[in-house]
Amino acid sequence: MRSIAFITGNALKFYEGSRVMPELVQVDSDLPELQEVDSMKILKHKLEQGKLLKLAPLVVDDTGLYFEAMNGLPGPFVKWFLKCIGSNGLHELASRLSSTRAVARTYLGLLLEDSSEVFAEGEVSGKIVAPRGKERGWNSIFQPDGSEKTYGEMSDDERFQVSMRRRAFENLRAKIDPS
Amino acid sequence: MRSIAFITGNALKFYEGSRVMPELVQVDSDLPELQEVDSMKILKHKLEQGKLLKLAPLVVDDTGLYFEAMNGLPGPFVKWFLKCIGSNGLHELASRLSSTRAVARTYLGLLLEDSSEVFAEGEVSGKIVAPRGKERGWNSIFQPDGSEKTYGEMSDDERFQVSMRRRAFENLRAKIDPS
Repeated sequence: MRSIAFITGNALKFYEGSRVMPELVQVDSDLPELQEVDSMKILKHKLEQGKLLKLAPLVVDDTGLYFEAMNGLPGPFVKWFLKCIGSNGLHELASRLSSTRAVARTYLGLLLEDSSEVFAEGEVSGKIVAPRGKERGWNSIFQPDGSEKTYGEMSDDERFQVSMRRRAFENLRAKIDPS
Repeated sequence: MRSIAFITGNALKFYEGSRVMPELVQVDSDLPELQEVDSMKILKHKLEQGKLLKLAPLVVDDTGLYFEAMNGLPGPFVKWFLKCIGSNGLHELASRLSSTRAVARTYLGLLLEDSSEVFAEGEVSGKIVAPRGKERGWNSIFQPDGSEKTYGEMSDDERFQVSMRRRAFENLRAKIDPS
């Protein structure tokens, strides 16, 4: 089986990705990100850089948290929201809006050796709650529908079962290996 | 007088900058922006590109709107907030927070022929109000302290008198031409 470089500095992302696609090899790095609210443009920009650096085959991940009441925000900017106001601030913000509903969404971009690109996404709906469990990004404030726990209260394995990233990787795998 | 390229697709930015520094020449383009909440990093990334493209001397502008209750947000991401929720949505957001106070801030980066870099900033305090006047970005919802009008209700000349960008350019000019 050929290996595919998964360019991410995030161990949890690699854990989830490689459980679906064992051929992934973590490249612990982060390519510079375009300032964009459209994750597809962010991914395409990253794949361009991967192309220049001759890293193919490679996969990149852009994950965001989308508040229903904010029409696309925080989206891919959620890391900056966290940096500025923290998970407490994000929860407080959501609780002041007309709805606490949110979607966690992962977009994946795969660059193959022949320079072709494959994209896939996966999402999970839920709500924003007061922080519970492990802090790690926005995990402690996102409670997926059908669960009593936030992502922050789950083990890595429990989280994997209801992960937007797992769904994205399953969709990606189905596209490149339809068998 | 040597000319300095002001790289911006925004006519109002050029109008304000060139009133302070008549040597500016508009280069109607936008360099790709790093996804960053720290404007200084955004500017440095742009100056790096300007260096590669041998565009010096050049100046770049990064302007943001900072909500007191959001600790640095929207900041340079305000254009994405506008894209997602519009000026109405921004006002609604501010009105749900603990304060409607905000600061408009312009950061400038200047790259000289000898590759040295000069940075300056200027800011204006005010509050976020329901949209009044011309839409143009967030102009219609920002009312500077001491004024009865929003930026959107002002003529270009009136706006210039109370502009964070004017202050930034005056600070920049003072740094490169202390006479």
